[in-house]
Amino acid sequence: MAKSILAVNAGSSSVKVTFYTFTNPPRAIADAQVSGITAPPATFKYQRGEFKQKEQPQENLGTPQDAFKYILQRCFSDPELSEVASDSDLAYICHRVVHGGDYCKEIEINDDTLHRLEALEDLAPLYVEETTQHNFEIHNFSALEIIRLCKKELPSVASITFFDSAFHQTMPLHVKTYPINQQIAKANGLRKYGFHGISYSFILRSVAQFLGKPAEKTNLIVMHIGSGASICAIKDGKSIDTSMGLTPLAGLPGATRSGDIDPSLVFHYTNEAGKLSPASTKDMHLSTAEEILNKESGWKALTGTTDFSQIAVENPPSEAHKLAFDILVDRILGYIGNYYVKLGGEVDALVFAGGIGEKSALLRRILAEKCHSLGVAIDSDANGKGVEEDQIVKDISKGGGKGPRTLICQTNEQVSQSQDGEKLKRLFANRTSAVRNGIPHRQLAVVISG
Amino acid sequence: MAKSILAVNAGSSSVKVTFYTFTNPPRAIADAQVSGITAPPATFKYQRGEFKQKEQPQENLGTPQDAFKYILQRCFSDPELSEVASDSDLAYICHRVVHGGDYCKEIEINDDTLHRLEALEDLAPLYVEETTQHNFEIHNFSALEIIRLCKKELPSVASITFFDSAFHQTMPLHVKTYPINQQIAKANGLRKYGFHGISYSFILRSVAQFLGKPAEKTNLIVMHIGSGASICAIKDGKSIDTSMGLTPLAGLPGATRSGDIDPSLVFHYTNEAGKLSPASTKDMHLSTAEEILNKESGWKALTGTTDFSQIAVENPPSEAHKLAFDILVDRILGYIGNYYVKLGGEVDALVFAGGIGEKSALLRRILAEKCHSLGVAIDSDANGKGVEEDQIVKDISKGGGKGPRTLICQTNEQVSQSQDGEKLKRLFANRTSAVRNGIPHRQLAVVISG
Repeated sequence: MAKSILAVNAGSSSVKVTFYTFTNPPRAIADAQVSGITAPPATFKYQRGEFKQKEQPQENLGTPQDAFKYILQRCFSDPELSEVASDSDLAYICHRVVHGGDYCKEIEINDDTLHRLEALEDLAPLYVEETTQHNFEIHNFSALEIIRLCKKELPSVASITFFDSAFHQTMPLHVKTYPINQQIAKANGLRKYGFHGISYSFILRSVAQFLGKPAEKTNLIVMHIGSGASICAIKDGKSIDTSMGLTPLAGLPGATRSGDIDPSLVFHYTNEAGKLSPASTKDMHLSTAEEILNKESGWKALTGTTDFSQIAVENPPSEAHKLAFDILVDRILGYIGNYYVKLGGEVDALVFAGGIGEKSALLRRILAEKCHSLGVAIDSDANGKGVEEDQIVKDISKGGGKGPRTLICQTNEQVSQSQDGEKLKRLFANRTSAVRNGIPHRQLAVVISG
Repeated sequence: MAKSILAVNAGSSSVKVTFYTFTNPPRAIADAQVSGITAPPATFKYQRGEFKQKEQPQENLGTPQDAFKYILQRCFSDPELSEVASDSDLAYICHRVVHGGDYCKEIEINDDTLHRLEALEDLAPLYVEETTQHNFEIHNFSALEIIRLCKKELPSVASITFFDSAFHQTMPLHVKTYPINQQIAKANGLRKYGFHGISYSFILRSVAQFLGKPAEKTNLIVMHIGSGASICAIKDGKSIDTSMGLTPLAGLPGATRSGDIDPSLVFHYTNEAGKLSPASTKDMHLSTAEEILNKESGWKALTGTTDFSQIAVENPPSEAHKLAFDILVDRILGYIGNYYVKLGGEVDALVFAGGIGEKSALLRRILAEKCHSLGVAIDSDANGKGVEEDQIVKDISKGGGKGPRTLICQTNEQVSQSQDGEKLKRLFANRTSAVRNGIPHRQLAVVISG
C-alpha cells in the first residue's frame, strides 16, 4: 500500500520536491531540493518537520536527473521518513510542467503521452517563477528529463504532469490568436497560452465555494501577483483571457520581467550608437532577448531590488521605488478595466492572490480606490489585517457596495482540512479515474506548488 | 503677399503635398504626389479641382528631395494654379514628422531646431500609415531630407514641423516608462511616445466644442481606427495614455501590423525547425522584425485583404474574416475598459474616428453592445446613417443613457467653415505668434492630413 505522493518542480538549475502523505487531505512531510546544478558546487537542502539540513554533496550533480536521483536516495535512506523508504511507497509522482501546448488538463505519462510531450519539448524556453516564497525557474526540458527518468527507473509509479497553461485552453479563438501569418503560427505553435493555471484553478474552486456558487457560474477577475505576475478573467468558471501569452513574458511586469513592451523595443536595447536607428541595432538572438526582458527588467531594473515589500510602502525610499509601484498599479488597473468590460460587468469578485497580492495591503487599497468607478470598495480594517494563516479566502469588501466583492485568496498555504472530501476519496480509491477526473484542484495546488 | 500654404507628407517611397489657400479657413486647391521613389519608374499624380493628371516622369526621381523638387516645379509651372507660381507665394510649408522625440508641440525650423531634429533623425524607423483614404508611409528621414531642402532652397518660407507624438507628452511618467534598465532607456530614448497625436488634438477640440465644454475639462476615449489604429485616453484635455508605444507597432492590430504580441514571439517566427526552441531560432535583425510585424501581419495576414470593409460585414465570407473582425473588437474593447477605469469612469464620450471608425457602423454597434456595462448605448438609426459629409461630429448615443455619449468625429474631411476664426486671424496676421501659439488644431488637421 503506497504511503505518499511525490511532487516535483524541475527548474533549469535546480530540482525541488515535496513528499506528501497519501491521505485525505495530503499533508507535507518532507521537502528536499538540489540547487546550483548549472553553477557547481550544488547545494542540497532537506527539511522534515523541525529537522533541517543543508550541505554540498561530493557527487557531481550536473543534470536534473542526477539531482533527482540524489534527492530520492537521500530521502529513501532517512530512517525518520518512514512513509518513504522506497519507490513502492509512492502512489504518484506529480510533475509541474509549465507549457502544455494544446493539453487542456493534466495527463498520466505513458508511451503515447510521453511521445506527445516530447514533441512539445521545445516549448516554453522561458522560465516561470514560483508564486511566493521562492524565485524558482521551471523548465519544460528539465521536467521532461525527470519524467523520462521516472518512467525508466520507477516504472511502477504513475507519473502525472500538470500544466500551467492548461486552464487557459478555454480562451476563445480570437483571444488565443495573434494577428500574424497563420500558417507560420500553426506550424510553430505561436499563440497565446497563458500560465499560472494551476493557481487559477485552485482559486476559482476556493472562491466559488466561499461565495456559495457553483464554480461553473462564477465570474472572477483574479490577480496572481508575485515576482511573476499575471491576471485572469474567468467567466462561468472558465478562463476567457489572461495577461501572459506565448510565454510568461507578456502582460504584467514582474520582479525581473518587463511584461508587455513595444515588440520592437528589445532590438534597440543593445545598440552601440545609443540611437533608435535600424542601422545601429545589431542582430539579436532569442536568448539575448530573453535574458534582457526576463531577467534584467521589471522592478529590479528600476529599483535594484526584487523584493516588492521594499517598494510597496507608504513613503517610498526613492523616486525609482515610487515609479516601480506606480507602473505595476497602472498595468494591473488596465487589465481590471479590460476584463471587467469583457465580463460584461458581471463580476462576482476581484481576487488578490500570489505573494504580493496576499501580502501588500497598500497595493490592494490603491487598486481598490482606483476601481471606484466599477463600484469596488474595501473595508480598510479587513484589508489592513489581510488573510490569516489558516484562511484560504478572506472578504475585504466594504458592506453595501454595488460592485464586485474584493477577496484575498491564499494559494500557497499548507492546507489543514479538505474541501473536497468525496472527490478525494474516489480519487484515492481509484488511481485511473483520478487521472481521468483530475485530482481535486485544491489538493493539486497544495501538491504542485508545495 | 503670400497666397498659399504647402503641406508635405514625406514617406519612404513617396512624397505627397497639398496646396491650400492662405485664407480663413484654408481651402485645398491642388494635390500632387510622386510615388515609387524606391521602386522606379516613379509616378506623378496631380489634381487641381476637376483636373487630374497621371504620368511617369522622364527624370530620375530616386530620392525624396528629387521628388519634392519635381512636384514644386510642376505646380509652379501650372498656369491654372495662379495661387502658387513661385516660393514667394508660400506663407508656410507644413511638414508632418512622425516621431518628435521629446518635443511637445510643433516647431518652426531654424538652425537650432533643425540641429535638434537631426539628432532625432534615427527615431521612428517605422512608418505610420495615413488615416483613411490612402496607405501612406511617413518617415522621419524622408521628412528631414525635405526640410533640409526647403531650408536651403526656399529660405524665405517658414517651415513648420508637426509631430504625431507631441500630443502624448502629457502622459504621466509611469505610463511613459517601460520597466527596463533606465540608464539604457534614457540613453537610447526607449519609452512610450504614442502617435496619431495631430488627429487626437483635432478630435479633442472638435468634440469639446460639440459638447459645449472647454477642451481642458473634457474627458474622452478616442478610437482612431484606420489601417493604422490606436486609442487614446484624454483627461482634462490631456493625453494620459495611448496604445501605441516606442513605435506605432505597439497596441492595436492594423491592416498589416500585429499590434501587441508576446515580445519574444518574433524570434520564433522565422525558425527552421518549426519549434519554439531557442536553438532553432536564428539571430534576427530589427529590419526583419519590422517587416514581419509591421507589414506582414494584421488583418491582411489573416484574410488576405487590407480593406476592412470586406471584413466588417454581417455575414463574413470566411472564418478568417470573422476572426480578424473579432480580434480587432476584442483588442479595442480591452482598451476601452482599461481607459474607462483610468479615467475614473468620468468619460464624456467614446469617440470613433479614423477611416474604419467613421465608416463601419457594424464595428461601432458591436463595440457599443459590448460596452453596455459602462452605460454605453447607441441609437441604431443614427449609427446606421453615420456621419454626414459636412459634419465633423455626430452624436449616435441613445437618449437617456447613463454612461458616456458615443460620437463619431471626422478627421479627414475638407472643412468648409472655420471653428476657430479669431485664433486663425491672429495666426495669419503674425507668423511668429502663430508658431508660438500653435496653428489652430482644426486647420492643422486639414493642412497636415490633407
